[in-house]
Amino acid sequence: MLVHVAFTPDEGGAAPTGIVIDVIRATSTMCQALSAGYERVFCTAEVEDARALRDRLGEGVLGGERNAVRIPGFDLGNSPREYLEPAASTLVLSTTNGTRAVVAAAERCERVLVASLLNLEAVVEETRSAGDDAIVVCAGVQGTLALDDAYVAGRIVELLGWGRTDAAEAAARLAGTWGGAEEALRVSKSGRNLLENAPELEEDITFCARESVLEVVPRLVELRDGAAEISA
Amino acid sequence: MLVHVAFTPDEGGAAPTGIVIDVIRATSTMCQALSAGYERVFCTAEVEDARALRDRLGEGVLGGERNAVRIPGFDLGNSPREYLEPAASTLVLSTTNGTRAVVAAAERCERVLVASLLNLEAVVEETRSAGDDAIVVCAGVQGTLALDDAYVAGRIVELLGWGRTDAAEAAARLAGTWGGAEEALRVSKSGRNLLENAPELEEDITFCARESVLEVVPRLVELRDGAAEISA
Repeated sequence: MLVHVAFTPDEGGAAPTGIVIDVIRATSTMCQALSAGYERVFCTAEVEDARALRDRLGEGVLGGERNAVRIPGFDLGNSPREYLEPAASTLVLSTTNGTRAVVAAAERCERVLVASLLNLEAVVEETRSAGDDAIVVCAGVQGTLALDDAYVAGRIVELLGWGRTDAAEAAARLAGTWGGAEEALRVSKSGRNLLENAPELEEDITFCARESVLEVVPRLVELRDGAAEISA
Repeated sequence: MLVHVAFTPDEGGAAPTGIVIDVIRATSTMCQALSAGYERVFCTAEVEDARALRDRLGEGVLGGERNAVRIPGFDLGNSPREYLEPAASTLVLSTTNGTRAVVAAAERCERVLVASLLNLEAVVEETRSAGDDAIVVCAGVQGTLALDDAYVAGRIVELLGWGRTDAAEAAARLAGTWGGAEEALRVSKSGRNLLENAPELEEDITFCARESVLEVVPRLVELRDGAAEISA
């Protein structure tokens, strides 16, 4: 078996199993919300699509951020710590990079799983059970490699123990240069942006850096009208 | 000053100074040829463009490879060791990935320099003298990160000592995981392809892995008719 890593959604590579990462913080929030009891999460890139979808559904919580801060008029932000208990059965989450990575994976994979550090081992186990080659698709930052997502990709590559493309080998080697997850997340651009724009959310980094504390494996159910439906 | 790394020609980022790498073997060959006395190198992605250009010029050596092997009817291959002495004033080199990386850099940089390990310090010095932010553009392999190019990018980032984007930090950390250049080049997909398709060219890897043995800094003069003109 072979594992590959796409550090940005637009770069090359395809495999039957796709694993999407936007660890600070979209995929961490999705994992936390679905683990806590939300039945489904819809991800949309555009804020207006999220509002329109919630109106159409007639129920659900609106969550999301721009520049780390809650979107005006939304019920919740993008902090996984806001999703420890379900406030409805549906979460409509507006996340630019996370949604783009899900869509990119859907275009070239038969199944799309959602990964964070929180559900690391569960995702690795599910990927093994699927029995097919895998590609890890990182959300990245502004179309380039993001250290936080690359770290998680490297951990997945290490735990899978499969054959590696050059990119997968790079991710595993990179992950090995830090003493642990929190160190990697803090030095990443996404981590520094969060600390700069919303220093009161510093605890989110520690929260997202915890490995394998959830059993949930969210997967893509459907892409429709610019929204990705995810459920466990 | 800030340095960024694009691990593939298509990914994000821009800066006034662009540094192109296809270390196994196109940019190593360009550096070697221009250092040996060739006055200019034209790079073309397509074999037919190379033939047509040489016919139009009425002079010059045709060089290049496909799957590590010399192209039928061409004078020379893509081994830098074939360019220790100039066989003409012009070299027309057909190199798919190298040419694409040069074109990608030209689209977003004011000046484009050609780097290999052979001219590592000279390129770093020239980049410093230019006094602008820089982006290292790697040729990559099949639209994904190539370990050999990423290694050279990391060495450039280390030597520059400037501020780093996430991608530049990743490259520097990655380069630090090997004991030296030859180790990195040998494990890379490009290195393994070369050893598999042309085991008689194994010495090319040792040759390309030598750091800072040439003073030449090739730069892009012009892009025209699908060809990139490079001279020192």
